[in-house]
Amino acid sequence: MKFGGTSMAGSERIRRVAGIVRRQQAAGHQVAVVVSAMAGETDRLVNFCREANPLYDPAEYDVVVASGEQVTAGLLALTLQAMGCRARSWLGWQIPIHTQEAHAKARISSIDAEAMIAAMDAGEVAVIPGFQGLSEQGRITTLGRGGSDTSAVGVAAALKADRCDIYTDVDGVYTTDPRIVARARKLKYVTYEEMLELASVGAKVLQTRSVSLAMKEGVRVQVLSSFIDEESPLADTLPGTMIVSDDDMAKIVEEHEMESQLVTGIAHDKNEARIVLTRVPDRPGAVSGIFAPLADASINVDMIIQNVGRDKGETDVTFTVPQADLARAQALLEDKRETIGFNRVITDSKVAKISVVGVGMRSHAGVASTMFKALAERGINIQAISTSEIKISVLIDEDETELAVRVLHTAYGLDADVPAE
Amino acid sequence: MKFGGTSMAGSERIRRVAGIVRRQQAAGHQVAVVVSAMAGETDRLVNFCREANPLYDPAEYDVVVASGEQVTAGLLALTLQAMGCRARSWLGWQIPIHTQEAHAKARISSIDAEAMIAAMDAGEVAVIPGFQGLSEQGRITTLGRGGSDTSAVGVAAALKADRCDIYTDVDGVYTTDPRIVARARKLKYVTYEEMLELASVGAKVLQTRSVSLAMKEGVRVQVLSSFIDEESPLADTLPGTMIVSDDDMAKIVEEHEMESQLVTGIAHDKNEARIVLTRVPDRPGAVSGIFAPLADASINVDMIIQNVGRDKGETDVTFTVPQADLARAQALLEDKRETIGFNRVITDSKVAKISVVGVGMRSHAGVASTMFKALAERGINIQAISTSEIKISVLIDEDETELAVRVLHTAYGLDADVPAE
Repeated sequence: MKFGGTSMAGSERIRRVAGIVRRQQAAGHQVAVVVSAMAGETDRLVNFCREANPLYDPAEYDVVVASGEQVTAGLLALTLQAMGCRARSWLGWQIPIHTQEAHAKARISSIDAEAMIAAMDAGEVAVIPGFQGLSEQGRITTLGRGGSDTSAVGVAAALKADRCDIYTDVDGVYTTDPRIVARARKLKYVTYEEMLELASVGAKVLQTRSVSLAMKEGVRVQVLSSFIDEESPLADTLPGTMIVSDDDMAKIVEEHEMESQLVTGIAHDKNEARIVLTRVPDRPGAVSGIFAPLADASINVDMIIQNVGRDKGETDVTFTVPQADLARAQALLEDKRETIGFNRVITDSKVAKISVVGVGMRSHAGVASTMFKALAERGINIQAISTSEIKISVLIDEDETELAVRVLHTAYGLDADVPAE
Repeated sequence: MKFGGTSMAGSERIRRVAGIVRRQQAAGHQVAVVVSAMAGETDRLVNFCREANPLYDPAEYDVVVASGEQVTAGLLALTLQAMGCRARSWLGWQIPIHTQEAHAKARISSIDAEAMIAAMDAGEVAVIPGFQGLSEQGRITTLGRGGSDTSAVGVAAALKADRCDIYTDVDGVYTTDPRIVARARKLKYVTYEEMLELASVGAKVLQTRSVSLAMKEGVRVQVLSSFIDEESPLADTLPGTMIVSDDDMAKIVEEHEMESQLVTGIAHDKNEARIVLTRVPDRPGAVSGIFAPLADASINVDMIIQNVGRDKGETDVTFTVPQADLARAQALLEDKRETIGFNRVITDSKVAKISVVGVGMRSHAGVASTMFKALAERGINIQAISTSEIKISVLIDEDETELAVRVLHTAYGLDADVPAE
């Protein structure tokens, strides 16, 4: 079971979570619980790091921010104990959850859950702070924002768990953000791949890597709300969203005689920033001179556009990076100005990426043109485009985010018959 | 160097601390820095624990509260790096600082500083979260409130440091709390033993155990203010208080032709609570039946009074415990009601302990009677008395704390000629 930051925000909510955990244990299950930091806490800690050092050392950043989950893990163990459940916390370095070195965005390499499994076999609930691991150098690492989902799936795989229930502040995966589109619909099922694309473009239900790990390890993931009254008779009959394989999805569509959708969901992401390098020499190797140092610094570059050279032998290169990495990216590029040979770095963090996702795209044409037409009709300018097999993303002005999402939700026929409450 | 919670409260103050550290490094010293949590943070975390589980498991309590120092250690390392100092944090389990098992009040058993010394030899400032260690079971322990001072002295001993400078929000050790007595005087020197007694009775400058560890290991401790402007020409000439051995003190008194004081300082402590057990059977073993379970639970009992039995064969037993342990102590005693055979447990946390301390007491009589007379003249009722070779403590109503301290400061001739600014 995994509980997010909203579910862990304060003693009252932690008691509610403990109640849900105890109910599963009472039903005869062995339970490991992965917890996030209290809502807002990680932001508070990240801000401290930025104030201390804008170009922070990610190893020390990890020391600071991992503390948020340490606190909630201890508190949930204490709360379970108060309810008469045997429980103890297992910190990332205690289990240990081994990760590769890349601080602030480490990847789990292996989990030695032996001691923890023994304790669980002896009837103890294991409470695990999400987000954190142990590097080969014996230092604390973190898995990137939202990394607790990945911790949960990783632990579920290590324990060969029957299920990985991810409790969030939403009751499932929707066709789009219901705060933007009142007629958004909850999806009963979604494939790993669709979920992966949705997560990668800002649908904040699950962290991207958690989904790809679940797909790789075949972990059955269920997204649920932790705010449904656990005493309600509906509690067991109000399912969230099940994340399933392509094959299972095909069977489900057939069994339930569901209509197959072209587009499953629409996501938006305001956490990208655009960088333009002007007057880059238009010669072989120039582009790799830009992106190699960013890759070395573990900065993910997403969309890339190389404009047609306006002046002979020169071109503008536009790309996006996560907003959190913008300052570091800019500093790195300024350092390499001579080598790369550009004129100016122009940055813009007031951009948003809007994506339409659906496995149906594989077998149908026209999905992209519907998107471009719908946006053009409302005068929304597209600054960049990127596509994958089951996703089309466009970069637009941040101010037009909500408008674009609404327009596309209607254009792809996703609107529910009645608005949500 | 060790910096307390007030010095670490927020980015601006941490920058100030980093400046002081850098200055010492620039002067050619190798520096290890021990830090407390931000002021107020440990209280916040302790409150969370109490809300989760009033009779909290100290092992999980340690997981929660140790996080405060982890945060400030990471932040100071980041801030030093921003100033161009090489620095890294070393958490309790990373060094490691081995402690005995008693959670929430663990004692340092050994410090394996080898890797840290190697890093310091290579020019890196070591930043160490105070208060925390590693148990034999591989879990996080904490050293009790104010334990960061003990961490600092322990690390200083392990590093064979030339000096252990403890920076606090006061600029030294005073004859009493200057917030209560404006004419309190700063002591230039104080002996380990006096400091030990002062610390044990609520002079919050240093934690008791840090002083006894310094005495045992011969660590030269200096108490300084972190709020003196480091750029000021006075910064090096405004000494704090040096804590010295008895022998050194005798030499200093002789050299400087100082007048030897009967009483060095007056301390108060509002963190005690009084417990009265009524109608305890007045037979051999009854008292050990009370105190053995408290000792087993690592609850320190301080003052003990056994009233003369009013009814035949029965007596009231009064004693004090730290307020933080009151709920646990009460629960333990209620559990043993049958075995001990008392009638009622009466508790009172509105009490204060006032202590006068001075090595001069060893060779002079009349110190106690001065105290009792001065308090009696102001109508202050003494509820309990305890004495040591160089200390006399009395328990009084908490509301009379400030009055009692002022009366005694004057009675022992400690008032300075002019009030402090």
